[in-house]
Amino acid sequence: MTLMRQQMEEYVFALQSRIVAGLEALDPGCPHKFVHDAWTRSQGGSGKSCVFAVPPDSEEGPEAVLEKAGVNVSVIHGVLPPAAVAQMSANHAALPAVPKDSPGLPFFVAGISLVIHPRSPHAPTVHANYRYFEVTDDAGAVLAWWFGGGSDLTPSYLYEEDAVHFHKTIKGVCDRYSSALYPALKAWCDEYFYIPHRGEARGVGGIFFDDLKHSPHPRIPGDDLSKRPATPEAIFALVTALGDAFLPSYLPILARRMHTPHTPLQRRWQLVRRGRYVEFNLVVDRGTKFGLTAPGARIESILMTLPETVRWEYMTDMGGEGTEEGRIMAVVTGKPREWV
Amino acid sequence: MTLMRQQMEEYVFALQSRIVAGLEALDPGCPHKFVHDAWTRSQGGSGKSCVFAVPPDSEEGPEAVLEKAGVNVSVIHGVLPPAAVAQMSANHAALPAVPKDSPGLPFFVAGISLVIHPRSPHAPTVHANYRYFEVTDDAGAVLAWWFGGGSDLTPSYLYEEDAVHFHKTIKGVCDRYSSALYPALKAWCDEYFYIPHRGEARGVGGIFFDDLKHSPHPRIPGDDLSKRPATPEAIFALVTALGDAFLPSYLPILARRMHTPHTPLQRRWQLVRRGRYVEFNLVVDRGTKFGLTAPGARIESILMTLPETVRWEYMTDMGGEGTEEGRIMAVVTGKPREWV
Repeated sequence: MTLMRQQMEEYVFALQSRIVAGLEALDPGCPHKFVHDAWTRSQGGSGKSCVFAVPPDSEEGPEAVLEKAGVNVSVIHGVLPPAAVAQMSANHAALPAVPKDSPGLPFFVAGISLVIHPRSPHAPTVHANYRYFEVTDDAGAVLAWWFGGGSDLTPSYLYEEDAVHFHKTIKGVCDRYSSALYPALKAWCDEYFYIPHRGEARGVGGIFFDDLKHSPHPRIPGDDLSKRPATPEAIFALVTALGDAFLPSYLPILARRMHTPHTPLQRRWQLVRRGRYVEFNLVVDRGTKFGLTAPGARIESILMTLPETVRWEYMTDMGGEGTEEGRIMAVVTGKPREWV
Repeated sequence: MTLMRQQMEEYVFALQSRIVAGLEALDPGCPHKFVHDAWTRSQGGSGKSCVFAVPPDSEEGPEAVLEKAGVNVSVIHGVLPPAAVAQMSANHAALPAVPKDSPGLPFFVAGISLVIHPRSPHAPTVHANYRYFEVTDDAGAVLAWWFGGGSDLTPSYLYEEDAVHFHKTIKGVCDRYSSALYPALKAWCDEYFYIPHRGEARGVGGIFFDDLKHSPHPRIPGDDLSKRPATPEAIFALVTALGDAFLPSYLPILARRMHTPHTPLQRRWQLVRRGRYVEFNLVVDRGTKFGLTAPGARIESILMTLPETVRWEYMTDMGGEGTEEGRIMAVVTGKPREWV
């Protein structure tokens, strides 16, 4: 096992524990805790899903801050079929041509993936994901490696200061490593988390990246490897700094919105907006689509990202101009905003 | 305009009125009626969506039988791009080769599409769709035509007699035209309404067909055009007979289940099962995928099929062996059943 595999695996498990503890600490009176569900995959790999949900038959009591949340770690290894290797080699010149009738190449991926859906319509949903991917030859020599990830925020109601705080925290981390990162990864996030059939952004964005490695990245204009993290160790440092920044980027927002009172109409709007979240994840998201068709995929972990309660209305009468609902609609249907 | 276009257009509008009236007659005390929403498409065509929903802020009262229902008619004409023509010509030998730089070929489609989600977990969701498609040359001469459609039933709880009644009604119609139809179209339905990532059928099936025209159909074993409807007029007669059978196939089921009392747990199960319905429509259904990417598509009409309230639980504890929930799970995860 390479050192980087081990480092990433250890990091994502530790980050998972910290995030779960941080979320639980925000709602100390809540009688419900995250459920820890360790699993193994028969084709190779294991993971742990930490999931929060209020048991549907639980006694009425003070409302939990979270409605549904999943913080999932998976460490998967297996063999990439020749077709998958061929597809990847477009982005990874170091991958050798693999004959169609060969078994393929060994791969390894370790990652953390989380989605948090708070109960209050005033508190935004958040997503984050960081992963390390490696392809080796049969002897274990690394042929290709890269990091991917990002984090984005999806409010039902617009609080500009929340979007600003979220972006500022992430930008602060990126800028410590290279001033080229945040603008490139922020723009990529706006492009990725977009629902074409609705003509809407999923939310107020954040950052998104994939295939970050030791070669110039087409998404980073004039990418200069000497001016940004480019070795496995350097990118690992960036990725762990971003992972470490997750709680600071989100917890203060959740803390100041979670007890804001709301009306049934605002709850309804939140459920309608969650419909868009489901549409993005099931119709658009490449990661979900890949996961759902991957042999031996753990469907419950992949679809853990879906909100607990969702609503679809035909031609909803909410979201019009001059309303609070209309303010967030103007943001998600408009040109991506620069928050910092 | 060909006679068949006009006949189909008139038929689907008339059927829409009858179905809406039939559903409203079942719940005469309900203060809410279907909303009729006529629309036109800038690229050519028009339609009418008839949608039922209970306004979320309506006063508490006796529960409506329906939770959400859409009965949509659309009559669309436009131009098929050369790539789409090329794809279709695989199934339609009469379509000429169209140069890549040509505008393409005119098409016309008239259809009715409906999904009914009753409120009671004991009453099944139902879907039906019948359509006529035509491709012409620029002078209006028909180059290719076919009919498609079907109807399928999705219960949250298994009442065998409901599945039997539904299939028996449809089979009765098919058998009047050809004994080859029901077995072939029933099997096709089982194959089509299947959720691969869950390993589950969407429900208890029905019939499904596409590309039914005047040439042997690969889905009908030993298809003999002299022994089943094969001309436009003859297939139109079959399709209208199936459309006419929609209310008889479904209303008696709805009538006997709509007032069955249910527990909160049964409602919860219904919402979880509706999650699968959404997964099928957004992830699997070719019609929805095509619609969402078609230029100028009317998204609200396409996604009208989604239930109003839906729930996703991580690793739900419902649906186990020996429970009522487990009985329907055994059906949808098992080999397709022969109901008649």
